[in-house]
Amino acid sequence: MLAAARDAFAERGFDGASIRLIATAAGVDPALVHHYFGSKDKLFVAAVEAPADPADLLPEVLAGGPDELGANVVRMLLRVWDGPARAGGLALVRSAVSNEWTARLLREFLTAQVLRRVVGTLDLPPAEAEARGALVASQLVGVVMTRYVLRIEPLASAPPEELVAAIGPTVQRYLTGPVELPGIGPATA
Amino acid sequence: MLAAARDAFAERGFDGASIRLIATAAGVDPALVHHYFGSKDKLFVAAVEAPADPADLLPEVLAGGPDELGANVVRMLLRVWDGPARAGGLALVRSAVSNEWTARLLREFLTAQVLRRVVGTLDLPPAEAEARGALVASQLVGVVMTRYVLRIEPLASAPPEELVAAIGPTVQRYLTGPVELPGIGPATA
Repeated sequence: MLAAARDAFAERGFDGASIRLIATAAGVDPALVHHYFGSKDKLFVAAVEAPADPADLLPEVLAGGPDELGANVVRMLLRVWDGPARAGGLALVRSAVSNEWTARLLREFLTAQVLRRVVGTLDLPPAEAEARGALVASQLVGVVMTRYVLRIEPLASAPPEELVAAIGPTVQRYLTGPVELPGIGPATA
Repeated sequence: MLAAARDAFAERGFDGASIRLIATAAGVDPALVHHYFGSKDKLFVAAVEAPADPADLLPEVLAGGPDELGANVVRMLLRVWDGPARAGGLALVRSAVSNEWTARLLREFLTAQVLRRVVGTLDLPPAEAEARGALVASQLVGVVMTRYVLRIEPLASAPPEELVAAIGPTVQRYLTGPVELPGIGPATA
């Protein structure tokens, strides 16, 4: 089932792959997939072997309201990556960089499971949500690469709160601030 | 010579590796290394097989003065990566993500050849220059990953100038704006 799910999500994207389709490809009943995984979201998180389920972390990220979203997203990213999930996260990044199939899975994971959940709370038109989400991704993925892969100092050893203070405002601007959005143009909060 | 240079730069960093040391490791005369490569910078660029030499691109990045540095850095990054150098750049990133040795080389390349040259024009105390440079790296590496590796839309297909407008201000803030610097604290322009 997980292999069929990976193929379907990579080929059709998260939205284009249905549990019915995945069940058919795996030669099982859709009810069995529902029974094991509960939802398409959970199946996807299992299929990409994500080291953490964004759905579980979301309430804490949203707790401070829209004005603290930027800082809280960076804070949560660092908490997950500074913890035991880092090895799994690095394996996923490694695989995504060397393999187009895994790159698509990681892209779908980021967009459908991480960014959409966060940006989705801001009640924006779809195109604006997508553009703001992609800008957020450009900063968050960069933090992961700089701190955990390339280990560029002082980012690599900085206490998390120092990075929240430095980078949180960038993510906040991308989420709710004035920004020239790719494909859309100037947007204000 | 290039293999000896790669080993030395990865092990000791750009500053710690001398042409004399690399020549000795390669079993040749230092004068020969100078003859072939001209400088330690050029030797390094050749050793990491960088698809472009930052020294050649620098004048254009600096031409607009400090206030346009953020936009010009993003513009140059996109021009290089949207061009024929992309394949070589992707190979370097791929290798760096899967191999600690290459990760060190890429880190040294970014810090000593790219960031130091750009941030070095701002006449900052060394620790502040390092911190601002690392923040810039976190955004630039993220753009490369999001646009060229993960291909997250609308960033993947956006015209370069739209990304310059969206992301340039972030890089500008990291370079010259008010920012809480890791290891240092609040800094203004």
